[in-house]
Amino acid sequence: MTALTAAQRELLDSQVVGVMATQPPQGHPLQSVVYYVRDEEQLLISSVAGRRKVEDVELTGWASLCVMSFTHPYPSATFSGSTKVLTEHIGGPTAALAQRFMQLDEPPEPQTDEALASVGRVILALTIERVAAISHLG
Amino acid sequence: MTALTAAQRELLDSQVVGVMATQPPQGHPLQSVVYYVRDEEQLLISSVAGRRKVEDVELTGWASLCVMSFTHPYPSATFSGSTKVLTEHIGGPTAALAQRFMQLDEPPEPQTDEALASVGRVILALTIERVAAISHLG
Repeated sequence: MTALTAAQRELLDSQVVGVMATQPPQGHPLQSVVYYVRDEEQLLISSVAGRRKVEDVELTGWASLCVMSFTHPYPSATFSGSTKVLTEHIGGPTAALAQRFMQLDEPPEPQTDEALASVGRVILALTIERVAAISHLG
Repeated sequence: MTALTAAQRELLDSQVVGVMATQPPQGHPLQSVVYYVRDEEQLLISSVAGRRKVEDVELTGWASLCVMSFTHPYPSATFSGSTKVLTEHIGGPTAALAQRFMQLDEPPEPQTDEALASVGRVILALTIERVAAISHLG
């Protein structure tokens, strides 16, 4: 865990997407755009079992997320740390992420873990242990 | 080299920043926001000798750049491939990148390679060999 600064929290809470990097045991890192929500010093990302980013996290227990504001000079930082694949108690964050993804006024009714498991839904939970590449922030 | 689609070229040409990932021989990938310009199927990024991303590229010859549009649903793709550190004939791209970085109407007068070398300026040249994590593009 690391203590986020006010500017870092503000950046994370002002955006809904970031670029996630995962690292396979062999081969090159993978980057992709993901929706996230912040829960204290964790970043939660919805994904599907079997996707490469989920497999990477299962194998390495690590990920990073680079988040930026969308106007010049593009304030940004990269948040990284231990990352887990969660399949329990994931109804709430999955609904919060669906709200962002579908641009709904309210989050949809949370689904049960069983219902989410039946379609392979998982949550990647990144514990922020390091903040790097900090640019134009505070 | 890979043939970019029209939608991929349009994405690259509509944006000025992306998230670059490099991979050290040991340890975790590094992500940071960078300005880029496209030259055919190469992406050119300005950096400074000694920075970790430059050292990573010197050691591994690889990088990726994830580029996204800034409005929902965030069309995006990750461009990756062999990457080199250039120190010759870099006046033109360095000036083009300075224009973007400083939001100038015109690029500044290109500097000589010698002048750029004296302040450690280099160009990272990423040859696009792979396009992955394509989302909401065309």
